[in-house]
Amino acid sequence: MNVIGVGVIGVGYWGPKHARNFAEVRGSRLAMVADLDERRLSAMRDRHPGLRTTTQHREMLESPGVDAVVIATNASTHVRLAREALLAGKHVLVEKPIAVSGQDAEELIQLAECSGLTLMVGHTFLYHPAVRALHDIVQSGELGEIYYAHAQRLNLGQFQRDINVLWDLAPHDLSILMYVLGMNPIGVAARGSAYVQAHIEDVGYVDLTFPNRIRAQIHVSWLDPNKVRRLTIVGSQKMVVYDDVETLEKLRVYDRGVDAPPHTDTFGEFQLSYRYGDITIPSLPSTEPLRVECEHFLECIRTGRRPLTDGWHGLHVVRILELADASLRDGNASLPRLEADHRLLVSGSR
Amino acid sequence: MNVIGVGVIGVGYWGPKHARNFAEVRGSRLAMVADLDERRLSAMRDRHPGLRTTTQHREMLESPGVDAVVIATNASTHVRLAREALLAGKHVLVEKPIAVSGQDAEELIQLAECSGLTLMVGHTFLYHPAVRALHDIVQSGELGEIYYAHAQRLNLGQFQRDINVLWDLAPHDLSILMYVLGMNPIGVAARGSAYVQAHIEDVGYVDLTFPNRIRAQIHVSWLDPNKVRRLTIVGSQKMVVYDDVETLEKLRVYDRGVDAPPHTDTFGEFQLSYRYGDITIPSLPSTEPLRVECEHFLECIRTGRRPLTDGWHGLHVVRILELADASLRDGNASLPRLEADHRLLVSGSR
Amino acid sequence: MNVIGVGVIGVGYWGPKHARNFAEVRGSRLAMVADLDERRLSAMRDRHPGLRTTTQHREMLESPGVDAVVIATNASTHVRLAREALLAGKHVLVEKPIAVSGQDAEELIQLAECSGLTLMVGHTFLYHPAVRALHDIVQSGELGEIYYAHAQRLNLGQFQRDINVLWDLAPHDLSILMYVLGMNPIGVAARGSAYVQAHIEDVGYVDLTFPNRIRAQIHVSWLDPNKVRRLTIVGSQKMVVYDDVETLEKLRVYDRGVDAPPHTDTFGEFQLSYRYGDITIPSLPSTEPLRVECEHFLECIRTGRRPLTDGWHGLHVVRILELADASLRDGNASLPRLEADHRLLVSGSR
Amino acid sequence: MNVIGVGVIGVGYWGPKHARNFAEVRGSRLAMVADLDERRLSAMRDRHPGLRTTTQHREMLESPGVDAVVIATNASTHVRLAREALLAGKHVLVEKPIAVSGQDAEELIQLAECSGLTLMVGHTFLYHPAVRALHDIVQSGELGEIYYAHAQRLNLGQFQRDINVLWDLAPHDLSILMYVLGMNPIGVAARGSAYVQAHIEDVGYVDLTFPNRIRAQIHVSWLDPNKVRRLTIVGSQKMVVYDDVETLEKLRVYDRGVDAPPHTDTFGEFQLSYRYGDITIPSLPSTEPLRVECEHFLECIRTGRRPLTDGWHGLHVVRILELADASLRDGNASLPRLEADHRLLVSGSR
Repeated sequence: MNVIGVGVIGVGYWGPKHARNFAEVRGSRLAMVADLDERRLSAMRDRHPGLRTTTQHREMLESPGVDAVVIATNASTHVRLAREALLAGKHVLVEKPIAVSGQDAEELIQLAECSGLTLMVGHTFLYHPAVRALHDIVQSGELGEIYYAHAQRLNLGQFQRDINVLWDLAPHDLSILMYVLGMNPIGVAARGSAYVQAHIEDVGYVDLTFPNRIRAQIHVSWLDPNKVRRLTIVGSQKMVVYDDVETLEKLRVYDRGVDAPPHTDTFGEFQLSYRYGDITIPSLPSTEPLRVECEHFLECIRTGRRPLTDGWHGLHVVRILELADASLRDGNASLPRLEADHRLLVSGSR
Repeated sequence: MNVIGVGVIGVGYWGPKHARNFAEVRGSRLAMVADLDERRLSAMRDRHPGLRTTTQHREMLESPGVDAVVIATNASTHVRLAREALLAGKHVLVEKPIAVSGQDAEELIQLAECSGLTLMVGHTFLYHPAVRALHDIVQSGELGEIYYAHAQRLNLGQFQRDINVLWDLAPHDLSILMYVLGMNPIGVAARGSAYVQAHIEDVGYVDLTFPNRIRAQIHVSWLDPNKVRRLTIVGSQKMVVYDDVETLEKLRVYDRGVDAPPHTDTFGEFQLSYRYGDITIPSLPSTEPLRVECEHFLECIRTGRRPLTDGWHGLHVVRILELADASLRDGNASLPRLEADHRLLVSGSR
Repeated sequence: MNVIGVGVIGVGYWGPKHARNFAEVRGSRLAMVADLDERRLSAMRDRHPGLRTTTQHREMLESPGVDAVVIATNASTHVRLAREALLAGKHVLVEKPIAVSGQDAEELIQLAECSGLTLMVGHTFLYHPAVRALHDIVQSGELGEIYYAHAQRLNLGQFQRDINVLWDLAPHDLSILMYVLGMNPIGVAARGSAYVQAHIEDVGYVDLTFPNRIRAQIHVSWLDPNKVRRLTIVGSQKMVVYDDVETLEKLRVYDRGVDAPPHTDTFGEFQLSYRYGDITIPSLPSTEPLRVECEHFLECIRTGRRPLTDGWHGLHVVRILELADASLRDGNASLPRLEADHRLLVSGSR
Repeated sequence: MNVIGVGVIGVGYWGPKHARNFAEVRGSRLAMVADLDERRLSAMRDRHPGLRTTTQHREMLESPGVDAVVIATNASTHVRLAREALLAGKHVLVEKPIAVSGQDAEELIQLAECSGLTLMVGHTFLYHPAVRALHDIVQSGELGEIYYAHAQRLNLGQFQRDINVLWDLAPHDLSILMYVLGMNPIGVAARGSAYVQAHIEDVGYVDLTFPNRIRAQIHVSWLDPNKVRRLTIVGSQKMVVYDDVETLEKLRVYDRGVDAPPHTDTFGEFQLSYRYGDITIPSLPSTEPLRVECEHFLECIRTGRRPLTDGWHGLHVVRILELADASLRDGNASLPRLEADHRLLVSGSR
């Protein structure tokens, strides 16, 4: 099979990492890089001598040596660039969020499906060994009945110009929760506050309802002194904590359950039996998530297989964010009740 | 001055600690202990040889050697017992919550004020050196403008028969927040779920609005694998984390602030300047909070001074809990909007 | 069986804890307390109303109501008081170290054996659930071949008047290592420095050689900013860390081993295969070690059974400390080589 | 000034990092890379398209485009390669240890001085912002009189074929201690054990004596389950802990001191006054140490300035390691006493 030529549009934070991976991975070569900032291009040429660069992304889209395009620009430009790339016949790997509206995301999905091109969204966490292991633990049923989940993604900065903290940080946890639980939320509500910049929320809470009475809360902040990336999933039998700030011990499985009391009518001593058991910290492979993601993208291009983080996955995340934003705008202090037509009827949508 | 005779009603978890303190502190003696369970009384006699015990709390209330009564029974019995004790002319230290309805709490306050007796509520955390230091830091203004607070009080159990997790755990954080911020909330909303026992929520979130746009969330749970007791207060200049699970390093002051960008119309480089500074862990005295609380109670009895955690403080906590409960019942998945008449107009009420 | 009357000599730090336990445990009663300091006795009477106290320990030894005596005084007085108590026909539980010379310890052992009295040493850690579990793990063989152990017991203070840091802190780790490994050391060397007080070492290192090439180092200090109590045992298959500063997660078993390369003569690629495996944190019961120790003492008195921490265990600890002290005095900067006659030939000594 | 052409010999673990830095830094260019393994060279060409590579390092030494050479091969080959490079007129940056014997190191120093070439050793930690800050804290005198230091550098693997754990890991701590304390040790003793491979110690302890009665111990291991990189320096006024495993909070300054008791003759209450004070975690810049090292190397070449980690620094480290090795071989169980002629008389040697 031929080597796939990859171009990268936008070499700010994520772009150079994509570029490095596609330069190193077997089966692809880094064909070209585009950015509006000539200094960034110059830095990329230092790192990749001989690399072709341009400030005109159209030059890349017209280049026959470019088979696939990575879009790693500001969120608001994702749709326009992805549309152009698909129309130019390029496979597309677009950074999350796929778009800032569900309608735009749907258009991209349709465009990719009609043209038979691969469209993948960079929800990198789903290629992280800890998230894979978390998924397997939850899906194995060893936690018992899933009760609820709680996620925190807090740090100081990075402030964004064009999106609020929900759009910046919550996509990670939404994507992880949907993948790990194997279902999409059916209810969303959100609350947030803008402290540092007017009208751009820097602290937010998203409440999610999943089928089977499963609830989840996602707490995101650009204003916290500590870097926190923690997801707790509580089941009737066991509980798991995924702490991404830990270097080695990212997952902890607690064999601590609670048995509900039998529903008797006696007035005897109230007893809930606790089972405090061992804690296990499973060993994880040390693969780089972005490397796995890039290899998955190349494989999907070659085989026509649907990516794990395809356009639909990206669309669901965007729809939830849209609803969360609407919820956040509606009402000053508290969360609005979800209307029936706000519910995400996404199960079975694929 | 005469030694104050103290009786303790209820010697389950907290009662014995009160008993020990009043037995050891100068200026008081442990006069009597009452409990319905004869085995508990027997255990108390082993620990305090010669101690007078009874299964009839009325016997204590009629005893002239008892000047003050500690009520450390189930929450639902607080009001009845406190009322009886006040009517019998005893000073009262009642465990939190003071009552399970604001109306009941108000009655107790009135009763104590009319009879000139001391009524104090066992919001022990306000006598904790870390909370005192936190209060001083916040009130000194060194955090800058207060933006928001986030509290988590999570653990596995203890399940309660008669109250949900909000009533069990949130009083601590409500009490601490009101004391540390020096103000009462003006808006409340809550959300919760009952997993293990039907109709008794074991996971809950309380959203609070304070004056000056200050927001706070309290997350409480009986279902978490880890014991978490963490309160973060974020200001424009500095941030503080109070982690009560830490043995020695309970407070951390982060000199990390964010400066908002000037509101210009230029399209130049977006810049938020971060100031990452030192972290300070202040040294704290190692006094036992309950000891300080007991001594404060004795001093208030002697001087007629109003306790820091008087009936009004207890009442505010109960009112917020009532509103939170109402909010939690109203609506299945999301938080109801607060009606104007739900707002707590408590500032200046003292 | 009759209730055993227990007297406590010395109610500084440990004495009151013994007193409380023997007052609460079934099968014993706290009969009397002795201390030279009348204020301490007064504080004990406050806690235990009606308790008989004395500044003359002989009064206790002559009392027929006292069957057993706990000696919780300064280390240098242990032997004299224990001897008197045994001669008066009392069973003895003496705090560690049993004596400050091996000869003294031997005399006490002989005295107790001749008179048929129980002599036990307060090496409390051997009654700690974490140490019990550590013992079981090591003895089960699941660690593979034991390679080496490393112990750190560091904190700021408490400075002692009459003994150096080796005698103050190392007895804990010596006792634990001998119990957990199931063997006594055959070689000792030590090094230390006196910084704050002349001639009283406040930092020390003890190097131990056990049979089967097992090595251990114990690092003790009164001068460290952090409180550290950590014991690591490394085997060929697994490794265990016992961290006593952790509240709940005291033991961690690492399934990380190293396989030695086969000894071939080829010049091929050098390969040591690492097995990084899961980490397990076993659940431990939450029993109070001192409570278990007190109950074990009572049981040994009743049954004539030999205590786990009998005089011989205490003697071995003292002999190692004597050798360590000798090693520390001999040579200014480095550790002296152990002479053959310095070796502890203690295996099989019971 | 002309751009300096840099060649890298050995592209296993460290070499590629040097290559990347010299490719990116202003003022240098990556001219050539040499390795015996063609696969490694191929990987380097993937990363640096157009890069000249060779399996014959002599080709590099003869190339006029190469002004300076980085030697990142196995320790045993350092001297031979550095000698050849210096004789070929190239500036040399050699990885630590500079050599495996002091005599060899001295030869390199002489060679560089005669030829006016820059000779630098890759003791990277001295370019780490945390070590720089630690140096400034210690040298400022705020710790008071320095008492002792304790260093631990523990992990599982990496096993080396040609050197033991002392030569592998201790150079870091030796280099840091000498730099931070501003003095060289005057006494050395060591102890170690070989468990996994015969005759190659995988656990070792080095005891150091510095002037002014300052003592230090370095504990290194390839066999520990946890990755530990911790250095504690205890002074009479304050104490510092440098924990390199921490991501952000690498330095902690403890304002906890101990005041010695006045030397009185009274028999009154023994009192050592402790001052428990605040803990400070200073903010550190996030510069990459290797980047700073590379820039320092280039600057020294240009200005003729003596590098911070020059040949003498490397020589001192090697001499201490030689003595430690000798001490370790002499005596089976314990540490030999240092002979007078073993002392390192290195102060003032520059």
